[in-house]
Amino acid sequence: MIYLDTSDPAFFLRFQALLTARGQQGESVAAPVRDIIQDVRARGDAALCELTERFDRVTLTPQTLRLTQEEISESAAQVPPETRAALELAAARITAFHEAQMPRDLDMTDAEGIRLGMRWIALDSAGLYVPGGKAAYPSSVLMNALPARVAGVERLAMCVPTPGGELNPLVMAAAQLCGVTEIYRIGGAQAVAAMAYGTVTIAPVDRITGPGNAYVAEAKKQVYGHTGIDSIAGPSEIVVVADSANDPALVALDLLAQAEHDELAQAVLITDDAAFAERVVATVEETLAILSRREIARRSWEDYGAVVVVRDWGEASEIVNALAPEHLEVMLDDPRAFSAGVRHAGAIFMGRHCPEALGDYVGGPNHVLPTSRTARFSSGLSVFDFLKRTTTIETDAAGLLAIGPAGAELARAEGLEAHGLSLSERIRRLTEKGSE
Amino acid sequence: MIYLDTSDPAFFLRFQALLTARGQQGESVAAPVRDIIQDVRARGDAALCELTERFDRVTLTPQTLRLTQEEISESAAQVPPETRAALELAAARITAFHEAQMPRDLDMTDAEGIRLGMRWIALDSAGLYVPGGKAAYPSSVLMNALPARVAGVERLAMCVPTPGGELNPLVMAAAQLCGVTEIYRIGGAQAVAAMAYGTVTIAPVDRITGPGNAYVAEAKKQVYGHTGIDSIAGPSEIVVVADSANDPALVALDLLAQAEHDELAQAVLITDDAAFAERVVATVEETLAILSRREIARRSWEDYGAVVVVRDWGEASEIVNALAPEHLEVMLDDPRAFSAGVRHAGAIFMGRHCPEALGDYVGGPNHVLPTSRTARFSSGLSVFDFLKRTTTIETDAAGLLAIGPAGAELARAEGLEAHGLSLSERIRRLTEKGSE
Repeated sequence: MIYLDTSDPAFFLRFQALLTARGQQGESVAAPVRDIIQDVRARGDAALCELTERFDRVTLTPQTLRLTQEEISESAAQVPPETRAALELAAARITAFHEAQMPRDLDMTDAEGIRLGMRWIALDSAGLYVPGGKAAYPSSVLMNALPARVAGVERLAMCVPTPGGELNPLVMAAAQLCGVTEIYRIGGAQAVAAMAYGTVTIAPVDRITGPGNAYVAEAKKQVYGHTGIDSIAGPSEIVVVADSANDPALVALDLLAQAEHDELAQAVLITDDAAFAERVVATVEETLAILSRREIARRSWEDYGAVVVVRDWGEASEIVNALAPEHLEVMLDDPRAFSAGVRHAGAIFMGRHCPEALGDYVGGPNHVLPTSRTARFSSGLSVFDFLKRTTTIETDAAGLLAIGPAGAELARAEGLEAHGLSLSERIRRLTEKGSE
Repeated sequence: MIYLDTSDPAFFLRFQALLTARGQQGESVAAPVRDIIQDVRARGDAALCELTERFDRVTLTPQTLRLTQEEISESAAQVPPETRAALELAAARITAFHEAQMPRDLDMTDAEGIRLGMRWIALDSAGLYVPGGKAAYPSSVLMNALPARVAGVERLAMCVPTPGGELNPLVMAAAQLCGVTEIYRIGGAQAVAAMAYGTVTIAPVDRITGPGNAYVAEAKKQVYGHTGIDSIAGPSEIVVVADSANDPALVALDLLAQAEHDELAQAVLITDDAAFAERVVATVEETLAILSRREIARRSWEDYGAVVVVRDWGEASEIVNALAPEHLEVMLDDPRAFSAGVRHAGAIFMGRHCPEALGDYVGGPNHVLPTSRTARFSSGLSVFDFLKRTTTIETDAAGLLAIGPAGAELARAEGLEAHGLSLSERIRRLTEKGSE
């Protein structure tokens, strides 16, 4: 854990170290991922089965790549009623928020009588990646599948690795809730490759979304261009901005809720009270001793955790903008006033009663968010990931005569003769007709 | 040029060939581009100067990488008034359309009294790539810079190669019109690397947009993740859907307006009248003989041009959706009826008086559009490329008590203890306080 004080003359140097602490993850797996993708493109289902045997210790044939409806139902049926009820509440709230996100089309006619438009159209298909093993999260299914559903995507395919052959009943129940019936028991770079390029058994999809490990993130980056992807997901991070009026134990739990995700996760406390910071750090240490995922959480906290003591909240918002965190908690009396100064954050959780974990599950906004400072230029998953725009221009002869000559002049200036002729020849014919 | 008839039993096989005709461009330059990016990251300005000397035959120092305001003004002053007036008309129309695109924030309070929001925030900075040499297009400057300006991006940097040291007055005038004053005379993969990672002289930007050759496209793909980019631009393409009521000469010019862009450009005519198709092809041949860019246009037309004769317009819209073209012209009596069936196209130009070239310059919608079938999942450049979203959740104790337990249940189910505790401990404290 690194302790920073903005009054320290060396603050900015040490803060730079914090910014770059987690470095370039994924770089190292570029080569093996490239090999896996090439193998899947070259040998299709056969490669998928071999790679799944190697990585997940599961023996598959092209016939058993896809889960049967019986397998899905039987697995989902194991979910206890109270958990199912919680999934349903989450699904309802996520659906409602993403429905509110849906944009409207443009249809305008300008002074020249030229009609301009923009239509939002859903993708034909989307592929949802769901991490497997210890990180098989039903909430990921809801957060990926529901925005696609709300956007109007007709075909949703899902890939979830089943290490050791084990299905996750919660993931199956979540998929059922979202109406996802096309599920493949594959994961890693091979699953991304299959969804991007297709195999005999798996039809390719137009866009692949969902969180994953370094291999999955690298694979998404490598297929990008041929297939759409969501933003590259890196390890999770949170910044908690808290004053001394907060309960240190609750702040500590919020920090550890990030730390327990991943050894590379980063939890940062920003406060204006050094004594409060010490109480939080002490509670983190106590809690780390008893937490079930303490090995992971301790690695994360000790390697990447940070406490920053600021002189005022203006400094705090500058630091937040520099970190551009995936998650930001503002545990102050007036969280709106503070967050008005925040330009870069994936999601903001406002007030003393709004832990980030609320947004992971039942808040409504998406929990797939930009990590590793990419909130500077990218956004959380949304219906916009499953829609694209087509613009339209419609004009009659009068409109062409009004603006066409300027277009022809620019075409001439750019030396694109046929561009110019396609405008000027139309204008000439119309003018001659006009003067007949 | 390939001639297809949907009544041909081999149509679908031959159509597949058309879909994949232009193959995987850029693959081959991945390695050299990687080297260039590494070189710029390692040696910064020195690498930029050496690479510019090698590729553009221009000798630069870190001090002369950036154009002076005098250089920009002197060059821009050479643009004749009629061209300047055309640029101004284009700028006004592009600005108006992109202003209409600006989305609105969300701010909703649900039945549980939980306030959910989504704020659109402009990027801090953007880097605009403008192709140099024979393809130095002022319209590209307008189409990239104006959406960024409308979105509210404060810092706009521009890179434009100046082969042989020559500045393009039109590009400089367009930059002036957009208020772009930070312009570097570099291009290719080295310019993309400089904007992504920064050098001593060039500060990095948050997102890089703009068309370019295969090196530029590959470089954007390689920096993606660290920096935002627009969709990977490939060679241009158009599909013209036309009945025999059209003037074959105008249809031929619209096809050639794409063909003259690039040897890899693709121009496709879809019509229901074989005789009309023959007249168009004949006119294309005649015009090719006299066109100034005939070498490029002929290569494009002969290698990738296509004519598809359909039995009905329903077949035509199916073919359009399979091609997912960057540009679509609908030269029919009822273009709206036809385009209602189009799900995948970057931009649609409707009616007999609306050539694609109109949209290249003065229509208003952006001319930077998804190519190579990426319109299946991506969109043209817009204000959305220069904005990102931050979602917000704000709740009081009552809201947390209403939905928190469901969140805690899902955290428990996912085995994330600290997530669950950050919710349940708050709930416990509130309940105890309540029952005191």
